[in-house]
Amino acid sequence: MLPLLTRIDHVGIACRDLDAAIARYQATFGLEVVSLEVNSEQGVREAMLAAGPSGSYVQLLEPLGPDTPVGRFLARRGEGLHHVGYGVKDIGEALAAIGGTGVRLLDQRPRHGSLGASIAFLHPADLGGVLTELVQAAGSA
Amino acid sequence: MLPLLTRIDHVGIACRDLDAAIARYQATFGLEVVSLEVNSEQGVREAMLAAGPSGSYVQLLEPLGPDTPVGRFLARRGEGLHHVGYGVKDIGEALAAIGGTGVRLLDQRPRHGSLGASIAFLHPADLGGVLTELVQAAGSA
Repeated sequence: MLPLLTRIDHVGIACRDLDAAIARYQATFGLEVVSLEVNSEQGVREAMLAAGPSGSYVQLLEPLGPDTPVGRFLARRGEGLHHVGYGVKDIGEALAAIGGTGVRLLDQRPRHGSLGASIAFLHPADLGGVLTELVQAAGSA
Repeated sequence: MLPLLTRIDHVGIACRDLDAAIARYQATFGLEVVSLEVNSEQGVREAMLAAGPSGSYVQLLEPLGPDTPVGRFLARRGEGLHHVGYGVKDIGEALAAIGGTGVRLLDQRPRHGSLGASIAFLHPADLGGVLTELVQAAGSA
């Protein structure tokens, strides 16, 4: 089996106040905001900040309300690391391969993610408690 | 201020059984184990698995006992994402710059990390609940 992952695409960080979190990450590390989007489907307002030149990002996530996945995460665990996203070359092939290993797919088919990427989530209970996202970047493969 | 971060070096994942976690990540993603070390100072047995060709890793951490940072994390939160490590070019310069922004340094001076790197941790309370590690890879500047 070939390695399916090409890089750590991003870490997703749940925060209560997106603007304050952006300001903190900019002041601490000098990171540039690459995008600022509302994703209604996922119930978040989010920013992607470039963590270096090679396609890795800090993703800051503020819930659109308490009854959203990130809103429930904040209520249960507080602010902090929410998920990790790994790059893949072909998300369709990756989902088929991973589904075949018995890891449950939260998304049977890719959906739209940040920066125009195709993404899908894997069940944290099958990956040691880690909510895991696969990311095929826009324009790749 | 220039961006201080060069990449996401690794995500640190706390687990109860390192061998089982390695087997799961290998079976799911085909990742290669690059190193397997005991770090007595940090109280962990750990593995680094290559997440792609560009110096990013999945770090799996099993505590050496309950009264260690990772042991206490597991008791409090269960298995899952423990910290994120970002690459920097010069860890001494990075610590000086970040300390100047008011973020508390858990390590005033770099210490030894995985794969011969120099590392230092930053206080999670000053970074939105995220335990954050700086990593200057072995052999770099």
